[in-house]
Amino acid sequence: MDYKISEGLASLKPSIIREILKETGGSSTIPFAAGNPAPDAFPVDDVKEIIGELFENNPILALQYGVTDGYAPLVAELEKLCRERYNVMTPDDGVIVTSGAQQVMSLLSHALLNHGDTVICEEPAFIGALNCFRSFGAKLVGVPLEADGMNIEALEKALENNPGAKFIYTIPNFQNPAGSTTCFEKRKAIYNLAKKFGVVILEDNPYGETRVSGEDIPAIKTMDDSGIVVYSGSFSKIVAPGIRVGFVCANKALLAKMTVVKQTQDVHTPIMSQYIVYKWLHDYDYEAHIAKIKSIYRRKLNLMCDLIDEELGDYVEYVRPEGGLFVWCKLADKFDMLTFVKKASAAGVAIVPGNAFLCDEAASSRYVRLNFSTPSDEGIVKGVKILGEVARNY
Amino acid sequence: MDYKISEGLASLKPSIIREILKETGGSSTIPFAAGNPAPDAFPVDDVKEIIGELFENNPILALQYGVTDGYAPLVAELEKLCRERYNVMTPDDGVIVTSGAQQVMSLLSHALLNHGDTVICEEPAFIGALNCFRSFGAKLVGVPLEADGMNIEALEKALENNPGAKFIYTIPNFQNPAGSTTCFEKRKAIYNLAKKFGVVILEDNPYGETRVSGEDIPAIKTMDDSGIVVYSGSFSKIVAPGIRVGFVCANKALLAKMTVVKQTQDVHTPIMSQYIVYKWLHDYDYEAHIAKIKSIYRRKLNLMCDLIDEELGDYVEYVRPEGGLFVWCKLADKFDMLTFVKKASAAGVAIVPGNAFLCDEAASSRYVRLNFSTPSDEGIVKGVKILGEVARNY
Repeated sequence: MDYKISEGLASLKPSIIREILKETGGSSTIPFAAGNPAPDAFPVDDVKEIIGELFENNPILALQYGVTDGYAPLVAELEKLCRERYNVMTPDDGVIVTSGAQQVMSLLSHALLNHGDTVICEEPAFIGALNCFRSFGAKLVGVPLEADGMNIEALEKALENNPGAKFIYTIPNFQNPAGSTTCFEKRKAIYNLAKKFGVVILEDNPYGETRVSGEDIPAIKTMDDSGIVVYSGSFSKIVAPGIRVGFVCANKALLAKMTVVKQTQDVHTPIMSQYIVYKWLHDYDYEAHIAKIKSIYRRKLNLMCDLIDEELGDYVEYVRPEGGLFVWCKLADKFDMLTFVKKASAAGVAIVPGNAFLCDEAASSRYVRLNFSTPSDEGIVKGVKILGEVARNY
Repeated sequence: MDYKISEGLASLKPSIIREILKETGGSSTIPFAAGNPAPDAFPVDDVKEIIGELFENNPILALQYGVTDGYAPLVAELEKLCRERYNVMTPDDGVIVTSGAQQVMSLLSHALLNHGDTVICEEPAFIGALNCFRSFGAKLVGVPLEADGMNIEALEKALENNPGAKFIYTIPNFQNPAGSTTCFEKRKAIYNLAKKFGVVILEDNPYGETRVSGEDIPAIKTMDDSGIVVYSGSFSKIVAPGIRVGFVCANKALLAKMTVVKQTQDVHTPIMSQYIVYKWLHDYDYEAHIAKIKSIYRRKLNLMCDLIDEELGDYVEYVRPEGGLFVWCKLADKFDMLTFVKKASAAGVAIVPGNAFLCDEAASSRYVRLNFSTPSDEGIVKGVKILGEVARNY
C-alpha cells in the first residue's frame, strides 16, 4: 500500500544520532556519540529498595491505572521542588508528571502548533526537540547561540520577522549540544522580549543539577509574572533515564490543554516509575546524591577537556562547559567536518556531526559533539587519543 | 497570557469519563463508570518475582536509556506472539513496543493525519480514540455499530462520501463501549472495502484475550496481504494497565514513521515495564493466566448481566457481550438518558452517558455504559439494585 503520510512526518527522518549509534553499535566502538548518563550516577540501591517496598506493600497501586496528571504524592513533591528549590512556581501554575522531558515538547507542540507555525530555537539545538517541532509542521527559525546564550539582537529580529511565532525553545543550563550556559542578563532579555512579543518560552532544564563549576543562575521561569514560561524538568540525569519521568510546571490553563494531549498519548506515566521518583524525593538524601553526581561528572568532564587540550589543542576550539554531558568542538579550517566524523568512526570513535543540531540539517557545520558521560574513564582517554591521531594524520 | 491554542486542541475537552470519575470519586460511589481491569486478574506474584530478579541481576538495564522500537527480547516475544498466536504478522511487518495501546492511536494519527482529514469510526466508539483523532483536527465520520459489527452498507457509503479518508478505526472484539463482536463475514467485508478504497484499518484489540463465551474469530489483520491493517494490542488487561505496555504490528514502512513519532513523544517505553512483559511472556504460563482472567471476567460479566435482567429487565435493552469489560444498555423511551445518569450518580452509582462515545458529543443518545471489572462483586450487586430502584422511581 502507498501510505499517504502526513505533511509533518513525510520528510522527517529518524535522528541522525540514532542512525550513528546503530552503525557504530559494535562493542569496540567508543561511544562519544550517545547521551546516556553515567551508570554509576544511578541511585541503584535506593531504587531497588523503593521498588521492593512498593511490591511488598502496595502491588495494586503499581499495577492499576492512574490519573493523567500524575501520581498525586509525586505531583505534591514536584510542586514543592518547583516552589522551594527552583522558585519557578506561581499560584497560577500547576505541575504534571510526563514520560520524560521529551514528552513536554510533544505536549506543548500539540497544544500550540498549527502546521506552518514558527518555533524559535537556539542554533544549534537538541535534535529530539527539533524533530518534535518538525513533526508538527513547524517552521524552525534559528537564533545563533553564543558562549553566554542566544544572540539577543538576532532573537529580537527573529521575533520581529516572525509575528505570531508560537514559542521560543531554550536550554539555558549546559545546552545540548553546545554546553553553553545562558547568563542572567540574557535570561532577563529573553524573558522581556518574549513578553513584549507575546510568545511562550519553553525552558528545558534537563541538566540543571549537573553543574560542576561556577554558580547556579536563576531560571527564566523565576521572572515569570505572566504565565509566559513553560518550565520542563527531568529525572533522567538525577535518578535514571530508563524510568522515563519528567515534569512540566506551567500556567494551569495551558497545562489543562497539555493534560488532554497526554491523555491521548499514553494515558499516564507508569506508576512504578512515578513511585520511584516520589519515594526517592520524599525519603532519600537529594543533596547527597546530587553531590555524588556532580563529582562523577566533574571528573569525567575535566578528564575529557584536559585530554582535548592535550591531544586536539591545535585542531579544535571549544568552551569548557560548567555542566551537562557534552563538549562542542569547532574543527580547524583544514578539516572537512563530515570527513573527520567518518575517519573517527573508522578509527573506532563515534561522534556526532554538528549539522544534526541545525534547523536545516542540510546546512554545513564545522562542529562535532563529544559526550563524556557514556564512555568509561578509560574510554574517554582512549577515544580522545584516537581523535588526536585522526586529526594529526588527516 | 492569552494562549493561542492549536486548531486541534482549541475545542477539545477532557474525557467526560475522567470528569465523571473526578466528580464521583468519593469512596462510597460504585464505579460502573471506570474501565479498570479487576485487580485480582493481575499476576502480582509473577511481576514481583520478575522485578526482584531484574533489580538483583541487571539494575543498569532497568535504569539506562533504551531504544525507541522497544527492548529487543520483548520485541522478539511480541513478534512470536503475533506470528504464532494471532497469525497477524507477514514478512513485510514489524512490531514496536508502545506505551499502552493508546499510544498506537497517537502514533498512527500523527503519521497519517493532516488537519481536516477523515477518520471513519464505529459509532459509538472508544472516547480515548475519538479524542486522539480530534486532537489532530480529524473529521470523524461515524458508521453505526450493530450487534455483529459495523453496518457494512453505511461503511461503504462513508468511504464513497469521504474520498481520501485516512483510516478506519475498529475494535472487533468486545468493543468499548458497545461490547459487540464483529462477525467473520463483516471482518472480511471491512477488509475488502478498505482495500478497494485504499484506506488503512486500525484494528485495536485490547480485549481479545477476555473472551468468556463463544469462539475466537480471526483478526482482520490475518487477511491482510497489502499492508493495509495496523494491528494494535495491549497488556493492560492481560498483565496490568499501570505498567503501560502495548504494541503495534504493521508494515515496516509505516512502522518506521510511527517510530520516529514515538521518539519525539517519549523516546521509549520504560524498560522496567517492558522487562516485566518480556519475562512474563518468556517464562510464565500464559495460557493458565488467561484461563484465570477469563474465569474472573466470566463471573463478573454474568453477575452483572443476570442482575440487569432481574432488576432492569423492563427498563433497558442490551446484548450480553462475549467478553470485554462493558455492558451497553439502551434505556426505554420513558427515560431521558442524561437525567437517568444524574439520578444514578445522586444515588451513588457512576455510569457513563452514551453521548460520550459519539463522533458528535452534542448528539443525543439513549444509551449508558456499565463497567463490571472495576467494582467488587458486592459492588456489582449493590450498584445494579440501586439502578433498578432509580428506574422504578423515575
